[in-house]
Order: sequence, then structure tokens, then C-alpha cells
Amino acid sequence: MKFNIALLAGDGIGPEVIDQAVKVSDAVAKKFGHEITWKPALTGAAAIDEVGEPYPDSTHEICLASDAVLFGAIGHPRFDNDPSAKVRPEQGLLKMRKKLGLFANVRPTFTFPSLIDKSPLKRERIEGTDLVFLRELTGGIYFGEKGRRDNGETAYDNCVYTRAEVQRLAKKGFELAMTRSKKLCCVDKANVLETSRLWRETVQAMEKDYPEVEVSYEFVDAVAMRLVQWPNSYDVLITENLFGDILTDEASVISGSMGLMPSASMGSDIALFEPIHGSYPQATGLNIANPLATVLSAAMMFETAFNLPEEGKAIRDVVNKSLAEGIVTEDLADGAKAYGTKEVGDWLAANI
Amino acid sequence: MKFNIALLAGDGIGPEVIDQAVKVSDAVAKKFGHEITWKPALTGAAAIDEVGEPYPDSTHEICLASDAVLFGAIGHPRFDNDPSAKVRPEQGLLKMRKKLGLFANVRPTFTFPSLIDKSPLKRERIEGTDLVFLRELTGGIYFGEKGRRDNGETAYDNCVYTRAEVQRLAKKGFELAMTRSKKLCCVDKANVLETSRLWRETVQAMEKDYPEVEVSYEFVDAVAMRLVQWPNSYDVLITENLFGDILTDEASVISGSMGLMPSASMGSDIALFEPIHGSYPQATGLNIANPLATVLSAAMMFETAFNLPEEGKAIRDVVNKSLAEGIVTEDLADGAKAYGTKEVGDWLAANI
Ligand SMILES: CC(C)[C@H](C(=O)O)[C@@H](O)C(=O)O
Ligand SMILES: CC(C)[C@H](C(=O)O)[C@@H](O)C(=O)O
Repeated sequence: MKFNIALLAGDGIGPEVIDQAVKVSDAVAKKFGHEITWKPALTGAAAIDEVGEPYPDSTHEICLASDAVLFGAIGHPRFDNDPSAKVRPEQGLLKMRKKLGLFANVRPTFTFPSLIDKSPLKRERIEGTDLVFLRELTGGIYFGEKGRRDNGETAYDNCVYTRAEVQRLAKKGFELAMTRSKKLCCVDKANVLETSRLWRETVQAMEKDYPEVEVSYEFVDAVAMRLVQWPNSYDVLITENLFGDILTDEASVISGSMGLMPSASMGSDIALFEPIHGSYPQATGLNIANPLATVLSAAMMFETAFNLPEEGKAIRDVVNKSLAEGIVTEDLADGAKAYGTKEVGDWLAANI
Repeated sequence: MKFNIALLAGDGIGPEVIDQAVKVSDAVAKKFGHEITWKPALTGAAAIDEVGEPYPDSTHEICLASDAVLFGAIGHPRFDNDPSAKVRPEQGLLKMRKKLGLFANVRPTFTFPSLIDKSPLKRERIEGTDLVFLRELTGGIYFGEKGRRDNGETAYDNCVYTRAEVQRLAKKGFELAMTRSKKLCCVDKANVLETSRLWRETVQAMEKDYPEVEVSYEFVDAVAMRLVQWPNSYDVLITENLFGDILTDEASVISGSMGLMPSASMGSDIALFEPIHGSYPQATGLNIANPLATVLSAAMMFETAFNLPEEGKAIRDVVNKSLAEGIVTEDLADGAKAYGTKEVGDWLAANI
């Protein structure tokens, strides 16, 4: 098969980790007889510098014309702690999500047996953890009307959801649950928020269409606790945008493998794949960043966007092999020899 | 001195744990020559059953006429999973906070050396953890306009903050930081929300009034991660209502001592003290609930509301003694003999 893949490397370590995912994807494509054409495009602080816009129209065109988007990371310290900055890299991210209609952010948290002791949590608490968050990504308080009144003395942000927005996200959640253990947890704050009550009643009404799925409803504060106490008690969780932002980040650190967690953002037409870690500015250009989360995001891309599970598995297998053989960056080296970002990528590509 | 204390036992295990705090407070009062008059009042599901209202006016009058409020817990399972319930115990809680003007919720998380191994986190991650959240409690999305439009197909919740609301909370945060390690972390989502940008700019403008306090600004998603990774890197944290709800619950489980954590909610005139655990309906009437969080809430009351640090310390000391001597409820007994709720309370009162 032939694929066009938009390549949005972004800021900080983005370009370095993306390079390794490209190498590994090309190696897989070669092995299975596919042909990938990479379409690099600007985004983030890099795009602000070149064209004054974190998600330029030219980049949007490239994404729309591609079969999938592979994304690195965005964000640059010079925009932080500057509430007055007019254009920020994050705006590019939000604009991209909205314009590409990426309404479902899929974030798995799972454990690598060899890394389990890196977790801040005790082994017995996390063994067997394998959960997936589906976070709504184009609605809620992120995109509601916001502004100031009373001469700037009062600020407001509006959180809005329609039943249709909840349904399309929940549908993906039920479908995902059907392919896994048939357990779905709807996370909300229905004891306080009207939008949460809409979420809960909408999901409740969909239960009858998936009679095999066992659905539970939990408050966001309770989930924030139980994720630390018993992460392995969860399977598929669905939630709204802001709760998802907080809880998926919390979940990302429990497994001890944060630097390895991939993610996907899906819409009706196109999907985007990215590591969940940030742009890690301090490490830029040092050839020390761990490329595995981006490489595993490429695996998700083969599996989900191209429906090629064998290819995805080939990538996962070579990643496991690199961990077993200690071909890892310094964050995982534990005193043993550490390899560079590029060297890990080369090894993976060579061993596909 | 003479005190009137409103006693809101509430639901579930509330009455049982409150009873022990009353015993211990009376013992301290006797020892130090104070006189406490307890003013019991209805709240929660118990109040709905008796007068159809979770926070009746009669209860409000009693609170207003008191020097402090001691609160148990509210919530009853028959109101959960019923989005159509017209009156809910939680409404009583929100109404009480608003009507009493309790704008600052103070929630410490600290470790008891003897309980550290109960934490889901590894010992080296939590040793030395001693942080305090100041959560804004009467503003934000909890109290903004909420409702439906488009025949119920669209739901909305408005998040609103004024500069004055941020200032009074932040002031408490700066003052608290001055009595501790002079480190203050402002938790927001200023990269997305206008209300968060108001929070950040307001706190930034106050920095000059507290030149000794070192202030940091972190995004809520980053804090959700770091609380699990390095909880002992935090000291005083200030945040808005919803973020505080999620993060304080997350923080409560890291120390291994969740059943022991007290809290205070303060306004301009009156303060309320309560354990952070819930009403634990399954344990109601079984004489097994751990009363220590409520007893320690009484200690906070003596210290904060009555400005009597010696009395507070006497309570903390006897609690530590009970832990050291194993006079504990079953949740802490670890296979050894477990004492009943009442027996622990009796022992504490006798040993003051
Ligand atoms: C950078 C920020 C706007 C973004 C978000 O809040 O969605 C990030 O935290 C994420 O989770 O992708
Ligand atoms: C019961 C609920 C309304 C309440 C809140 O969200 O404030 C509770 O979770 C709390 O933290 O006190």
C-alpha cells in the first residue's frame, strides 16, 4: 500500500524523536512492501518563528491531504509565564484539533514488565495495569466562549456540550470496550455540573445498544484517587476535555513508563499520532531524548489508521526487544550504558 | 474561655466519628479550663428526611450563632446514580459553603511515619511530604450559571472569577506560606482558560507584597503528575474550586493516611472543620470507622478558629500516642487487635 503521512515535528525534542519514528516506519514499510511519502510541515513555536502562526493554513492543507498525521511535541519556554503573549504554540494545538475534527484522544496506560520498578507506585499496585482513556478533545471549556467583563476584573470561561458531541465520543468508548474487557467507566462531576449530567444521561441511554458492556459512573475526584490506589481496576474510561487533560496526565506517570506512552487523536476523517510527553526543551539537540513513545505512536498509526496490525506488532516487538537488550536512552539505562536517541532509532530500524 | 460549636454530624459514619471528636474536645476543654456548648443541627440526607432540605435555615442560624462548626460527612447512596433526584445532599454542602462564605478550603497532606508503608507510593517518594492545598470554595464553575438549551440537547456551565475572589484566597495562601517554608505554587490552566489567566496575573501582582515568598506557576495537568511523582516537592498550593476538588482528593491518597486527614473551610466570619473522608455508608453503625480525621479536625479548630495551639497540640499528641500504641480501628490494625470507633475515642479522651 501507499501512504502519505504529514510529519509535524514541532518544537524541542520533537524533531529528534520524530526522526527515529520515521526510520522505524520506513523499515516496517520496506519489510511489508508499503511505500510511505512523508510530508513535513511547520507547527508550534517553530511555525510562529517562520510564519507567525502556530498552525498555518499550509500545514492544515498538508494534513488534510494525508492519510495520517505523525506529530512530535510543541511548546517553548519563552512563551510560558508570559500571560500577555498574543500568539502561543498551544493555540496551534487547539486550532489543529478543532480544524481536523480530532474529537477523541486515545491515551493508553500500560506497564512494561521490565520498567515496573521505575514507577512511583508499588509494584503490587500497578502490576497488570492496562487502561485506556478516551478524552473528548474539541469541546467543553477549552472551546466555549471566554473573556473579560467589568474592565477586566471578571473573567469567564464557558463549558458547553451537546448530546451529539457526547454520543460520538461515547460510541468510540463502547466500541473500544467491546474489543477489550467490556468494562466502561464514564467519568464526570454529575453531582455539580449540568454538562456532566448531560454526559451521564447520554451514556446511560446508550447502554441498551451495548448490552454486554458493563458501565460504571464515577466522579472525577474519586477517579483521581483510585488511579493512584488501584489503577489496574480500570479498563476503558471516557471523559470530557478538561477532566481528560488532568486524569490522562496523572495516569501517565503511574506505570513508570511515561516516556514510552503513545497516543492517538481521531476524528471522522483523519487521525493524528503523538507521544504524550512534551517538548522537553532542556534536552533539545542533546541526542538524549527517549524516542520510544513516538515510535510506539507510529505503531498505533499502522494499527489504527491503516488497519495493519502485523506492522504495528512488528514495531512493538522490536521495542520490547530493545528494552530487553538494554538498547535504551539514559532515562532507562539505570547506570548501565546509555544509547543516544539516534542510536536507539538506528537499532530499532535495523532490527525490524 | 467559652465556645459555642455547631455540630453537624450528617450522614453515614458522620455521627459516629463526630461523637469521638466531641469526647476528645471536651477532655481538652476540661484540661485547659474551657467550656464548650455543642449545638447539634441537621444536615445532608438526614436533613432531607426530616425537613426536606439538606441545609435548612434552622441549621444556618445555629452555625451563624456559633464560634465554629464541626462537620462529619454527608452523602447517601440512594441519591447517587439518580440524575433526576430533585434534592441532593451535595446541594446542602454547596449552599452551606456559599451562605457561610467559606471561600478557602484548607487541606493538608502529611505523613505519619508509622503509616508510611500503607501508601500506594514507594516510601522514598513520600517521606517528608507535608503540603497544604488552599482550594477556592465559593466560586468558579460550581456556582456559575448552568442549564440547558436547544430542548435539553445542549448543556452549559459557566466558570466565573473576579479579581477580588482570587485576591482573598491568594492572600491566605501567601500568609500561610510565610508561616511555613515560604514557597507558594499557583495551580492553573493559564494556557487555555481566561479565568486562569486572571488567577495568574492577580497572583503575580501580589508577589511584590510578599517579597520573601517564592512563587511558582504550574499547570493543573503537570501538578496532577508531580503529586504522584514527587509530592514532597510541594509546600503551599493555591487553586480554583474544580482543580482543587480533583487535586486535593488525589493528594489525599498519597500519604497512606487518608483516613486521618483533617480539613478546614474558612470565611471572613466563621470556619468549619471536617474530615476529608466521605460518609462511608457501608460502615454505618458498625463501630468500625476511623475517628482520627475528625479528631484531628477538632485539633485544627482549636488551633485556627480559637487560636489555641497548645490545645491543638494536646490532641495531636494523643493521636500520635494511640498510633504508636496500636489503639486503632481495623483499617490501621494490620492483623493486630482492632478497636472500635467508640473505644478509640474513649482511649483518646482518657489519655489527653
Ligand atoms: C498544551 C495544552 C493546551 C494541552 C491541553 O491542555 O490539551 C496539553 O496539556 C495536552 O494534554 O495535550
Ligand atoms: C460532594 C461534592 C459536591 C464536593 C465537591 O465537589 O466540592 C466534594 O467532592 C468535596 O470535595 O467536598
